[in-house]
Amino acid sequence: MAMPVVELHVLEGHNPKEKQRLGQALTDAVRFVVPANPDLVTIMIHDMPTENYYRGRTQRTPAPARPDPKLIIKTYLLRMEARDLAKARAMLDKNFTMTFPGTKPMTSLEELIEWSKPRYKFVTKTYEGFDAMQSTGDASIVYCHGTLQGEYHDDSSFEGIRFIDRFEVIDGKITKQDVWNDMAEVRVDT
Amino acid sequence: MAMPVVELHVLEGHNPKEKQRLGQALTDAVRFVVPANPDLVTIMIHDMPTENYYRGRTQRTPAPARPDPKLIIKTYLLRMEARDLAKARAMLDKNFTMTFPGTKPMTSLEELIEWSKPRYKFVTKTYEGFDAMQSTGDASIVYCHGTLQGEYHDDSSFEGIRFIDRFEVIDGKITKQDVWNDMAEVRVDT
Amino acid sequence: MAMPVVELHVLEGHNPKEKQRLGQALTDAVRFVVPANPDLVTIMIHDMPTENYYRGRTQRTPAPARPDPKLIIKTYLLRMEARDLAKARAMLDKNFTMTFPGTKPMTSLEELIEWSKPRYKFVTKTYEGFDAMQSTGDASIVYCHGTLQGEYHDDSSFEGIRFIDRFEVIDGKITKQDVWNDMAEVRVDT
Amino acid sequence: MAMPVVELHVLEGHNPKEKQRLGQALTDAVRFVVPANPDLVTIMIHDMPTENYYRGRTQRTPAPARPDPKLIIKTYLLRMEARDLAKARAMLDKNFTMTFPGTKPMTSLEELIEWSKPRYKFVTKTYEGFDAMQSTGDASIVYCHGTLQGEYHDDSSFEGIRFIDRFEVIDGKITKQDVWNDMAEVRVDT
Amino acid sequence: MAMPVVELHVLEGHNPKEKQRLGQALTDAVRFVVPANPDLVTIMIHDMPTENYYRGRTQRTPAPARPDPKLIIKTYLLRMEARDLAKARAMLDKNFTMTFPGTKPMTSLEELIEWSKPRYKFVTKTYEGFDAMQSTGDASIVYCHGTLQGEYHDDSSFEGIRFIDRFEVIDGKITKQDVWNDMAEVRVDT
Amino acid sequence: MAMPVVELHVLEGHNPKEKQRLGQALTDAVRFVVPANPDLVTIMIHDMPTENYYRGRTQRTPAPARPDPKLIIKTYLLRMEARDLAKARAMLDKNFTMTFPGTKPMTSLEELIEWSKPRYKFVTKTYEGFDAMQSTGDASIVYCHGTLQGEYHDDSSFEGIRFIDRFEVIDGKITKQDVWNDMAEVRVDT
Repeated sequence: MAMPVVELHVLEGHNPKEKQRLGQALTDAVRFVVPANPDLVTIMIHDMPTENYYRGRTQRTPAPARPDPKLIIKTYLLRMEARDLAKARAMLDKNFTMTFPGTKPMTSLEELIEWSKPRYKFVTKTYEGFDAMQSTGDASIVYCHGTLQGEYHDDSSFEGIRFIDRFEVIDGKITKQDVWNDMAEVRVDT
Repeated sequence: MAMPVVELHVLEGHNPKEKQRLGQALTDAVRFVVPANPDLVTIMIHDMPTENYYRGRTQRTPAPARPDPKLIIKTYLLRMEARDLAKARAMLDKNFTMTFPGTKPMTSLEELIEWSKPRYKFVTKTYEGFDAMQSTGDASIVYCHGTLQGEYHDDSSFEGIRFIDRFEVIDGKITKQDVWNDMAEVRVDT
Repeated sequence: MAMPVVELHVLEGHNPKEKQRLGQALTDAVRFVVPANPDLVTIMIHDMPTENYYRGRTQRTPAPARPDPKLIIKTYLLRMEARDLAKARAMLDKNFTMTFPGTKPMTSLEELIEWSKPRYKFVTKTYEGFDAMQSTGDASIVYCHGTLQGEYHDDSSFEGIRFIDRFEVIDGKITKQDVWNDMAEVRVDT
Repeated sequence: MAMPVVELHVLEGHNPKEKQRLGQALTDAVRFVVPANPDLVTIMIHDMPTENYYRGRTQRTPAPARPDPKLIIKTYLLRMEARDLAKARAMLDKNFTMTFPGTKPMTSLEELIEWSKPRYKFVTKTYEGFDAMQSTGDASIVYCHGTLQGEYHDDSSFEGIRFIDRFEVIDGKITKQDVWNDMAEVRVDT
Repeated sequence: MAMPVVELHVLEGHNPKEKQRLGQALTDAVRFVVPANPDLVTIMIHDMPTENYYRGRTQRTPAPARPDPKLIIKTYLLRMEARDLAKARAMLDKNFTMTFPGTKPMTSLEELIEWSKPRYKFVTKTYEGFDAMQSTGDASIVYCHGTLQGEYHDDSSFEGIRFIDRFEVIDGKITKQDVWNDMAEVRVDT
Repeated sequence: MAMPVVELHVLEGHNPKEKQRLGQALTDAVRFVVPANPDLVTIMIHDMPTENYYRGRTQRTPAPARPDPKLIIKTYLLRMEARDLAKARAMLDKNFTMTFPGTKPMTSLEELIEWSKPRYKFVTKTYEGFDAMQSTGDASIVYCHGTLQGEYHDDSSFEGIRFIDRFEVIDGKITKQDVWNDMAEVRVDT
């Protein structure tokens, strides 16, 4: 088995967390094709000072890193679960849309609250996993899936209902949320 | 804006398609953190002949590349839609499990057929997008989402029902399929 | 004294002469700033096969190298000295202009012949040196200087008259020629 | 179109201006052969601390960079135009020679002044462009061309007379100046 | 003749002496196969900050460098010659063994003293050279050879008796010493 | 623990065995200072075609690799043990000298045969190990040690007598051999 070695040359200015995300994303990218054990994939980041890096005969200014989209989504989900709508809303892009089972695209959290009201008293999520990647465009994509638990309006409780969310994040703001779950399936069965 | 440059040193033996997947995955990995236009990300793959590459003082043999998981899933979905169960089954790992809305994990396509019989006469899929990435383990993960159309047993037709599938692929075999959709939601509403 | 090392990564497809020109130009570029003996400057060219080189997630096609502008000018000067106007003209860009001592910019070799007729019967050049470089635009620039010898219409001969030519070459065609020499100075003195 | 990438490994100790000159000279050197848009040429300078760089099993001491020859010539030309002979003379190498139209090689600025006295009362230069490059030896070469304006001794003025200068600079001192212009040509015509 | 160039990428944290040893060892390693003059071998060490270096998706902690085994052996030999047994003993591994001409492997310096007592009053060493290298295991190997001089118990002196020592050093401790010399040969002859 | 990565840039033309020796020597050189497990040391050899490698603005011709000195010594020892003096002699440099216990430097194998005649009927060697390295000069150094067995002239046999040889090899020829062993010591004791 070989040891793929990746060298990334990039303008300096990224902090250790950003570099760690680069190290992880590059390792995963290599392993997407090369079946190497992660321990055998080496990533080396060469920070280039602006005065050592020229394109078009001139120095270049580094842009700030994209924020971690997985962290953004985790924060958003926490705020929604805590019903801190003001703080959650602050994370949404002005063109934000969300689609829930059986809904048209909604653009405000208020619509979501209205939609959910007849369905359950409250719901919380148990997460089985998050996946995040960059699209070929500006959007970072985050998936999370797991199970829902909560209470219906008749005080009966539910749990173990499968769900999956798909998010798009651009410039640190959530632009799109798509939600699927088995709530209707479960209710139909019961 | 800078121009990140990635150099990948890897044992030779990958074909152009595999290198292209590497080029794409590495570009996306950089852009997951560095907000560079794709046109400004350069990927250079240095193929190392085995006689030029040593670890532990000895030459190393390259392992064959992982097959493209997105292509595997697209092929599988085509075969399922064509009800070519034999060929579809050949793509499943012996530990394959699949979970559909309201089902326990099923292990054979026959179970799936049984499960779906009372639900609809037939169903086909319109895809909005595929996302693929490597997990930190051996599994490659593929998501696809879009809408379902087909006919119920009462000859009424449906369309535009949202769905999402999540697959795991290991060593070229599908090990896991998780499916969510709005069929029950839609039926409840109708 | 250090040993600067230059690595050039470039799409494969350049022939040995083109690589030699790269090796020379890069050596001179380093020595323009770093006062190293040429023997201590190492240039390594890494030819990248197209299938190993990605920008914007896609392969790139190499463009043919610029032809050697010094060679172009030497050929042109030989053809002019041999009065092979047809072949010399074929080397000129459609926007070609030339300026000789005391002339406005001329656009055809015929104008030049007319201008020179009253001045001398014939003239040939002895070269002391050629310098060539790339401008920041598309033009390559070539200088040559040396001395003129020939015969005036009164059958008297001249020699050792200093001259300098400045050429611009774009896409293999000569777009501009500027000529200075001491002919008038010499005649004034005589 | 490809994106040539140049990596220069050099002992640390160059200031940002010197690195910028390296970035520019290396970009131009690549573009002398590879017809890439400047914006697609990336230059990365790897500064090597002396303790990280060995030749012949020993550390090496970096030499100071060559001063910018274009800047030296511009300064010299300004001082000459201001007739600040003392400061201009300080920039000349002890083996300095200069050749003007119709002169033998002269070695002192006084000779030049004597030579010019009968020719004009004063002259100033309008520059159209400077070109600089490194020769294969120690000399850096600088060309500048443009037009002359000034006054003759009969109080008549002149302008638009083409000139070109060629300089050689070694170790920060001007060793050679060659001048061509159309003054005699113009006077002959008038 | 070419100029081999070695780049070593290693976690930062080595001091200049350790880097110099790396520079020397790498130069010698190249020259073991490539017959280049040492002055033509360039070694460049790229110190990687831990935050820029990933293996298995995680940062790695650098281990302290191995101490210089040649220096360890020179110190040990000095201490033995000065009969500073306590300090010499502190340099020995707990599994230390030594074999001298005609002895079984001994494990303590006291045994050595006992063995030597009947042989000579004292002995000192003149060194002709030290060679050191890394084995394929954990042990660094040090050879030294030269000549012995001293006095026998009959007050007669000897000199110029050839010897050679072979040492193994692991984790900074001496684990093995093997000694050969011509003392018996010389006594037989006398 | 880190994963040191070595890149060697060298003119192409070395065969796989020579590259393997480079891979091994470079691994050992790194491990002489950096306490990494061999499995974590990666060596990558970049073969440079002559047309891609410039020093002093010109291409360079690769020199043939030094032959493997360990192999040379093993062959020599086999030939000596087989008393194939003609073939053994062919491996000696014209300035070859050898020193055995109690001898002055000898220059011919015949001298050695003469020296050994009174000492034993025959002797063969059992090897415990070979070590080889490059000196800072042209000589490669090879050590081997182990034990001797054979027969004395009184038909008694001996075995387990420790020996060590030190060889120097230049340009594929043996220039120096130094031998130490315990034969005299053993005879003294018996």
